[in-house]
Amino acid sequence: MVVTDPDILGAYRQDRAFDPAAGTALALVRPTTTAQVSAVVRWAHEHRVPIVPRGAGTGLSGGSTAQHGALVLSTEKLRDISVDTVTRTAVVQPGLLNAEVKRAVAEHGLWYPPDPSSFEICSIGGNAATNAGGLCCVKYGVTTDYVLGMEVVLADGTAVRLGGPRLKDAAGLSLTKLFVGSEGTLGIITELTLRLLPAQPPQSTVVATFPTLTAATDAILAITGALRPSMLEFMDSVAINAVEDELRMGLDREAAGLLVARSDAPGEHAGYEADIMLAACEKAGATEAFRTDDEEEGEAFCAARRFAIPAVERKGPLLLEDVGVPLPRLGDLVNGIAEIARHRAVLISVIAHAGDGNTHPLIVHDPNNPDESERAHLAFGEIMDLAISLGGTITGEHGVGRLKKAWLPDQVGPDVMALTRTIKNALDPHGILNPGAVL
Amino acid sequence: MVVTDPDILGAYRQDRAFDPAAGTALALVRPTTTAQVSAVVRWAHEHRVPIVPRGAGTGLSGGSTAQHGALVLSTEKLRDISVDTVTRTAVVQPGLLNAEVKRAVAEHGLWYPPDPSSFEICSIGGNAATNAGGLCCVKYGVTTDYVLGMEVVLADGTAVRLGGPRLKDAAGLSLTKLFVGSEGTLGIITELTLRLLPAQPPQSTVVATFPTLTAATDAILAITGALRPSMLEFMDSVAINAVEDELRMGLDREAAGLLVARSDAPGEHAGYEADIMLAACEKAGATEAFRTDDEEEGEAFCAARRFAIPAVERKGPLLLEDVGVPLPRLGDLVNGIAEIARHRAVLISVIAHAGDGNTHPLIVHDPNNPDESERAHLAFGEIMDLAISLGGTITGEHGVGRLKKAWLPDQVGPDVMALTRTIKNALDPHGILNPGAVL
Repeated sequence: MVVTDPDILGAYRQDRAFDPAAGTALALVRPTTTAQVSAVVRWAHEHRVPIVPRGAGTGLSGGSTAQHGALVLSTEKLRDISVDTVTRTAVVQPGLLNAEVKRAVAEHGLWYPPDPSSFEICSIGGNAATNAGGLCCVKYGVTTDYVLGMEVVLADGTAVRLGGPRLKDAAGLSLTKLFVGSEGTLGIITELTLRLLPAQPPQSTVVATFPTLTAATDAILAITGALRPSMLEFMDSVAINAVEDELRMGLDREAAGLLVARSDAPGEHAGYEADIMLAACEKAGATEAFRTDDEEEGEAFCAARRFAIPAVERKGPLLLEDVGVPLPRLGDLVNGIAEIARHRAVLISVIAHAGDGNTHPLIVHDPNNPDESERAHLAFGEIMDLAISLGGTITGEHGVGRLKKAWLPDQVGPDVMALTRTIKNALDPHGILNPGAVL
Repeated sequence: MVVTDPDILGAYRQDRAFDPAAGTALALVRPTTTAQVSAVVRWAHEHRVPIVPRGAGTGLSGGSTAQHGALVLSTEKLRDISVDTVTRTAVVQPGLLNAEVKRAVAEHGLWYPPDPSSFEICSIGGNAATNAGGLCCVKYGVTTDYVLGMEVVLADGTAVRLGGPRLKDAAGLSLTKLFVGSEGTLGIITELTLRLLPAQPPQSTVVATFPTLTAATDAILAITGALRPSMLEFMDSVAINAVEDELRMGLDREAAGLLVARSDAPGEHAGYEADIMLAACEKAGATEAFRTDDEEEGEAFCAARRFAIPAVERKGPLLLEDVGVPLPRLGDLVNGIAEIARHRAVLISVIAHAGDGNTHPLIVHDPNNPDESERAHLAFGEIMDLAISLGGTITGEHGVGRLKKAWLPDQVGPDVMALTRTIKNALDPHGILNPGAVL
């Protein structure tokens, strides 16, 4: 269970935030049972050794960055799942990938909605630890909306069970919800009870391109004001061209923005809703807009949107932002980001889960060019400042981790930071759980 | 703002749990601003005076029972609301009734789903404090699923803002969710940001009566296994007859159980789903079952179900239970309750939000008959013991309050109790917030 081989430790030094400040862990542990997780944490608690919990290592905010002298506790070998079709719930261990959970429940005709773009490679435990989102959240909510219960190992090694397979449970404090999104700073999740839905109906898809960013954001507000799409995604000109370079789908390279909108209303109502969205795009000034009820064609456009990050990444390493704003401020955010890109002379591509106001500005930079790298990092911070000034959040779905913690006080203020620290100190008085993350 | 008139204080002694152990408060305060709430709590904190927060006083677990030497802080005068149709959110103060929130947002074509049976008389602040449920939760979830943010006054009088009108926000701990359902033990909510949905489509309604409890629970499981009804309510024979005594609707007095099931799928899909539910009822052995697409007729059956509690109450004062179980155990719970009623020789009527496994056994007793009263209270506890033994909860939606706190450790265990106390002590070190509730 305990690994100290430097080559293997090296592979666990970083997550996908590639934090240059990553340290080298004392050891890697890969427990196979909750009892082993308890034993490790109990030992670490007694010896005051910090622990960095790690799922699949796909985090984008550095929440799993290894620290000098710490244990890395990987949940990758905790991989059980059982599905209960009557209560429509699944009990899963944290090391399963999101896609594995989706596939296992689909075999029973059920659906686990949350769908981060990384769903094929990210773990369900990491999803719960960061309260991960995705593309369907605009209609179906985020991870916390699907977590009914959990088993979690506390800082002293005690394993507790919270909640359970009950759609309603008002007994005691909402502890389950507190641990979702706590990024490994309050406990280590060893099991989750997830709420499931019946299989998603077939979707109708609308694809539209726009001559200006303003036309695109107008269409977004018109759509969300009229109905709840099952997906409403945005790519800017840079992303469109980067995707087209790779996939040759015939996307309009001249467009300032592209929307992919979907409806999963039952039967022909998906088409009705798609037509409303199509009309909204046309009214907002779309240069081209069409609807398809072909699942494969619709999925191809969603895949194109999911492929935007790797496609833009071909231009150079990315600083991946995750800021969100209340929907009416989306236009201000997108235009403000363009202004920051001009001012700092860096390439920033904006893709977005537009329907819930959650954007991913992708800042391209050459880490070997110190001047450009500095400008990119300045832009990274300025985008968070901008989101905060618009009443938004520094992170919609990736978490604070280590990369964003300097901005958290600016968003939530000193009193909420004090409250956060009070809870952290009460639950982890020796600060051994993921030190340096969030706080 | 401060009231010490004994007559007025008397009216604030109890909530609808009618706890005989209610005390007489030092004074009643009815602040009109958050600043006043802060001032009161700061004063109470300095002088170590306990505070019992109170919404509309409709709580059923004694969470608002006045205590000797305490201040009762009523939120009834905090009544502002503003609706944002673009982000589809409402910012509301806690003193508004649930029905007032529903009506205000309906004027904008929007819908606030959570619908406790008491929605015309319970406050939205109390709903958040108890994580209240209702009839539509089987499809639409409970209060916490609709709370995106809040302003809350902490035990030292500091007012903090948590979350906000953002569908996704992963910045920091999930503090908003921790305060929902904390029953006034961690802070006093002075404002809520609520997520809203587009107006609910018209519903199709199925009403079915069953010769046995088993037939009824078979139908419930068949329905929830096939689709997500927008409502799935149950009344037993006692409730049917009590309602029929009052309303003369022509309900089948011979039936062992009655289900009211609804679908709000768009357009004719509501009818399709209703037909699936109708067939499930017939297959499970319904003596009579019919579907109506008439909104008024459907609403009449829902109103009958909501009227069950007052109707049964005509037989005598009630001990109102709120136990829930995972759905497959619903039959065991209902049959076990009948067994407890026989053994203790008390009348217990069971009504239920059947689709989410949340039942309300109504224990009729004469408080002036000490022997019967004792048997009723024994049954009250035995029903909770039964629910716990079936993997259930002692409270699905009413909260623990003071009436159920003796059973909370049996449900969650000593480690979760210790965790709960750690958080309580950290956030309210002098124990001034709603002492004696939950813990």
